Amino acid sequence: MSAQAAREVPLSTLSPKYLHTNSTSHTSAFSAIAALIDNAYDPDVSAKQFWIDKTLIKDNLCLTFMDNGNGLDHETMQRMLSFGYSDKTAVEGHKPIGRYGNGFKSGSMRLGKDAIVFSRSKSGMCIGMLSQTYLEKIRAKQIQIPIVCIKERNSTEHRASLQDILRYSLFQTQGELLAELDAITSSFSEQQTGTRIIIWNLRRTTTDETEFDFETDSYDIRIPNSEIAEKTASYIPETAYSLRAYCSILYLKPRMQMVLRGEKVKMVLIAKSLASTKKDYYTPSFLRKRVPITFGFNTKSKDQYGVMMYHTNRLIKAYERVGCQLRANKMGVGVIGIIECDFLEPMHNKQSFVKSDEYRQTINILGKKLEDYWKETQYRWKQKHPNSSVPVEDTMEKPDQKWVQCDNCVKWRKIPDGIDDSEVIDKWYCYMNPDNQFRSCDVEEEPEGYDDETSGYTKTYKQQRKRATPSPLGTPKRPREDVPSRISGTLGERSTCTPSVPADVEDSDSQTSDIISTLEAYNTPTPANPDDDEGNADQEAMEEKYCTMNTFD
Amino acid sequence: MSAQAAREVPLSTLSPKYLHTNSTSHTSAFSAIAALIDNAYDPDVSAKQFWIDKTLIKDNLCLTFMDNGNGLDHETMQRMLSFGYSDKTAVEGHKPIGRYGNGFKSGSMRLGKDAIVFSRSKSGMCIGMLSQTYLEKIRAKQIQIPIVCIKERNSTEHRASLQDILRYSLFQTQGELLAELDAITSSFSEQQTGTRIIIWNLRRTTTDETEFDFETDSYDIRIPNSEIAEKTASYIPETAYSLRAYCSILYLKPRMQMVLRGEKVKMVLIAKSLASTKKDYYTPSFLRKRVPITFGFNTKSKDQYGVMMYHTNRLIKAYERVGCQLRANKMGVGVIGIIECDFLEPMHNKQSFVKSDEYRQTINILGKKLEDYWKETQYRWKQKHPNSSVPVEDTMEKPDQKWVQCDNCVKWRKIPDGIDDSEVIDKWYCYMNPDNQFRSCDVEEEPEGYDDETSGYTKTYKQQRKRATPSPLGTPKRPREDVPSRISGTLGERSTCTPSVPADVEDSDSQTSDIISTLEAYNTPTPANPDDDEGNADQEAMEEKYCTMNTFD
Ligand SMILES: [Zn+2]
Ligand SMILES: [Zn+2]
Repeated sequence: MSAQAAREVPLSTLSPKYLHTNSTSHTSAFSAIAALIDNAYDPDVSAKQFWIDKTLIKDNLCLTFMDNGNGLDHETMQRMLSFGYSDKTAVEGHKPIGRYGNGFKSGSMRLGKDAIVFSRSKSGMCIGMLSQTYLEKIRAKQIQIPIVCIKERNSTEHRASLQDILRYSLFQTQGELLAELDAITSSFSEQQTGTRIIIWNLRRTTTDETEFDFETDSYDIRIPNSEIAEKTASYIPETAYSLRAYCSILYLKPRMQMVLRGEKVKMVLIAKSLASTKKDYYTPSFLRKRVPITFGFNTKSKDQYGVMMYHTNRLIKAYERVGCQLRANKMGVGVIGIIECDFLEPMHNKQSFVKSDEYRQTINILGKKLEDYWKETQYRWKQKHPNSSVPVEDTMEKPDQKWVQCDNCVKWRKIPDGIDDSEVIDKWYCYMNPDNQFRSCDVEEEPEGYDDETSGYTKTYKQQRKRATPSPLGTPKRPREDVPSRISGTLGERSTCTPSVPADVEDSDSQTSDIISTLEAYNTPTPANPDDDEGNADQEAMEEKYCTMNTFD
Repeated sequence: MSAQAAREVPLSTLSPKYLHTNSTSHTSAFSAIAALIDNAYDPDVSAKQFWIDKTLIKDNLCLTFMDNGNGLDHETMQRMLSFGYSDKTAVEGHKPIGRYGNGFKSGSMRLGKDAIVFSRSKSGMCIGMLSQTYLEKIRAKQIQIPIVCIKERNSTEHRASLQDILRYSLFQTQGELLAELDAITSSFSEQQTGTRIIIWNLRRTTTDETEFDFETDSYDIRIPNSEIAEKTASYIPETAYSLRAYCSILYLKPRMQMVLRGEKVKMVLIAKSLASTKKDYYTPSFLRKRVPITFGFNTKSKDQYGVMMYHTNRLIKAYERVGCQLRANKMGVGVIGIIECDFLEPMHNKQSFVKSDEYRQTINILGKKLEDYWKETQYRWKQKHPNSSVPVEDTMEKPDQKWVQCDNCVKWRKIPDGIDDSEVIDKWYCYMNPDNQFRSCDVEEEPEGYDDETSGYTKTYKQQRKRATPSPLGTPKRPREDVPSRISGTLGERSTCTPSVPADVEDSDSQTSDIISTLEAYNTPTPANPDDDEGNADQEAMEEKYCTMNTFD
C-alpha cells in the first residue's frame, strides 16, 4: 500500500520562496545565529570549539561559522538541507537542542540569501549549497540542493552539483573549495573533522546597511542603533545587542568554547552570577517532579531583571518579567529567576515556548515564587537594617560565589573569594585551583547545587505575617526568638520530621492560629490549601518542603 | 541549464515530521486559528462570512472552519498543501495577509494531527488531506497529499488519493464526502462556492484534555485555566483566552463577518473604542512617509493597556507595553496605542515582527509618543481638576464615538451619542441610521480619520514646561492665556503657516527661550534637534506637524 501510494498520491513540494518564509520564524539575528551554534553543540556533532567570524570573499561580506565536531557525510548533508529529518537523540545524557532539524535552514537564510557548507567527517569531505540567489537565477520551481562529495567527484549526480556550486557560489574553482575544506583541519580537532558554514549576500536594512555593527567593537558583532536604545531605556539587556554577551549565557551550563572574531567568549555560569541566591521549588501538577528555581539579584545592573527560561540547557526566554515585575510598582526590581523548563515545548525558533496550559501555569507560579523571594529579601533587609533608606536591590554588587571554567576540560570550578577576577579572564586551568580537591582535570565537577539540593529556603516574612494575625483562640503571642531558627531534615528523614510551618500557604483562612501552636502540633499533617499554587502537587513534596529549611543570609 | 539541473541536482525534501516542527511556529492556539481566518479573508478567497464551530464526527471531536469565498481548484489545493507557493497579490487595494502561504499547514497542524479540506470553486469540487496520522500509518518518508477532484474521479492519480482519503480520514464513503461538500452550499454565497476545513485528533494536554474550554461559554472557544490567571493577574487581556474577544479585534477595520459556534462575533472598530482619543504621527527615517498613531484610554479595563500593532489590517501584537509602561511606576496605565506597521516585516506566525532595526526604532518612538500622550492627559486633567484625587485613567468610561457595522454592506457608520448600545447588538443596517447622510448601503463610508487626518494634537505640557524654564535672555514670562489656543493649517497652506512651536522637541538645550518668543519668530525655520527621535525625518513633515494643531479635549 505504502509503495503504491508513494507513486500515485502527489507529494507536497517546496517552493524556493519557502526559504525566506521559513527564516521569518526568527525574531532576531541572534536567534538565527544561536540556531547555528546549537547544531554544533548538539550530541551528533559534539564540537568542543565554535568560531564565529566575518570575512570578505572576493569583496563579498560574509559571516563564517566553524566547528570542530564530527562533520557531515553525504546523507547527513542531504538531511540537513531538507526539512524535518532530524534523528537527533541524546548521547550520554547530553540532550539535543536542535531536535526540529530546522536550525540550519531557518538560521542561515535569516542571515543572508545564500549559504555554503563545507564539512569533513570520518568518511570524507562534502560540500552543500543552499542559495536563494541560485534558485532564482535558474528559475527553479522546487528547492534544489547541490551536494558534492569530494571522494566521488566522478558520479553524474555530483558533476551537476559541482557545476552549479562553481557557477553560483563565491568559489569558482575546485582549488578554492578545497582551501575552505583545509581551513577546517586547522581547527586542530583530534580527528581533523568539522564543519564550516559561509553565508553571503547578508541581509541589509532598508538603507542598504548590513544589520550588524562590526565597527563599534572589533571583537563583537552588535545590533546597531541600540546605543540609542541604551541611553533612553536601561531595561534593554546587553544580551539583546551584543552577540558576545548573548553567547555567554546561551547555555545554562556552557560546555562548548566559543571564539567570536578571534577572541574567546567568557562564558557565564548564570546561576552562579547572582547575589543573595536562593533556591525554591516548583512541582507542576502535570509533572509530579520538583523543578528547582534559582532566584537572586543581578549584580551588574538592577534594571535588567526577570526570569531566564532555559530548555535542555539552551536559553529560550531572557529577562521575562513575571508577577509583581509586571505591575506598576517597584516590586521585583533587580531580581533574576532561573529555571530549566524541559517539560515545556519550545517553539520552532527557540525564542519562546508554545503557549500551552502548562506554560501559563509555569509563568503563574514563577510570578508567585519571585514575589515570595522579593518579600523575603525586603523583610530580611528591614530586620537587619531597620533605619536604612537604601533599597536592598542597590546593595547587590557581588555574586555570592565565583566559578570559572577550565580551558582544557571545560569543567566548572568554584574558586575562593578574594581571587582577583582579572587573573582568570584569559586562561584558567584546573591545576591553577587553590582548592586542591579540584586541582586536576581528572576530578569530577563539584555538584552545582546551592547548599542542599533538596531544600527550599524559609519564607520567614510569611510566618511573621501570620504571627501578627490575632488568634481567635487567644493564644498569647510569643517573642520572635522562640521560633527555631533552623529546622533540618531531608526527604529520607521524613518520618521523624515535624510537618511544621506551612510557610508557603499565604492568606489562608484556616491558618489563623499562632505560628507557634502550629509548630507544636507536630505529627499532624497540615492539609494542603486548595488555593495554593501547588494544590495539585503531591503531599510528599509539600511536607518535604516544609520540613527542610535553610537559614537565609 | 535549469531543466538539466532539475534532473541531476538533488531536491530538498519534506519529512512528515516537518508538519509538527512547522506548526510550533505558532505561540498559541488562537494564533493558529487566526492563520485559517486570514486565508478566507485574503483577496484570493475574499469570503464575506466565516464560520468556526466544534462538532463530533463518529465520536471524534473536530474543529470546523468554513468560508463562502472563491474556493480552491486542483492546482490551488496542491499549492495550499505544499510549501511556499503563495502567489497572493492585492485586489482593489485589499492586501493579502497570508502572503507566506504557510497559514493552512502551520495552523491546522497546530490545532490537530489531521485535517481535510473540502472546497467548491467555479471549476468544480475538490478534496485534499493533510494528515500526520495517515503519513505515520503508511510510514511515508516524504509528505504525501491525497487530492481528489470530484469531476475527474476516474483518473488514476485521483483513485489512489481517494482510496487513501476514504481509508485514513473520518469519512468512509463517497457519500459522506459529498455531504460535507453540500454543507458549503448551505452557506448561501452567491456563487455557492467556499471551503470547509475539518480538523480532528485535536491537540491534547498532558492530562489528555483538549486545549480548549468549550463548556464555560457555549458560544465561545476559550483557553482554559485562565479563570485562575484572571483572578490573580488582571493584566491578562480577554483576547488571550476568549476566541470571541480575539476575533473581534483581529482586524483593524473588520470586513468579514464571523460566526463563532452559531453566534455572530460583534466586531470592534478598535480605534473608535477608546476615550480621550488623540492622533499623533511618526515619520520613520527609513520611510519618508507619515504613519498615524492613535492613542486613547481603554474604556473597559484600565489594567489592559499597551500598543496594538497591526500589519495590513491584521493584528500582530496586542497590548505590547512600551516606554514608560515598562518602567516600575504608574505611568501609561490604561493607555492604548494603535498603529498599522505595514513597513515592518511580520514573522511567520504573525504574532510578532522580525526584530530589525526598523522595528526597534518604531518601538522606541511608540514609547516616546505614548509618554507624550500620558503627560499631556495628566497635565490637562490637573489643569481642569486641580483638586481631584481621582487619577485621570479612572475617569475613562465611555468611548469618544460609537461606530456600528452594517450587517448587509459591512460598512462602518458613526451613530450619535445617546443611542442605546443594546439596540445595535444583534443586527444593524444602514437604513436604521439616524443620520440621513449615511442611511443607505450605497453611500460610501465616512472617512475614519479623527477630526483632521493631517493634524497631530498640541502637546501643551511641553510648552508649559518650557515656559517654566528661566530664559537666559530675560524674556519676561507671560500668562498662559496669551498662547493661541488653536493654530490651524495643513500641508497645502504651509507657505502661510508659522513654523511655530517645536512642541515635539523635548529637553532641548537650544530651546531655552520663552515659548512666546518662538511663536513670534515666525518664518524662521526651527532647526531640527539632532537628538530628536525624528532627527532624520524630512523637514517638511516636521514643520507640518508643528503648524497644525487640534485643541485637546
Ligand atoms: Zn580542567
Ligand atoms: Zn449597509
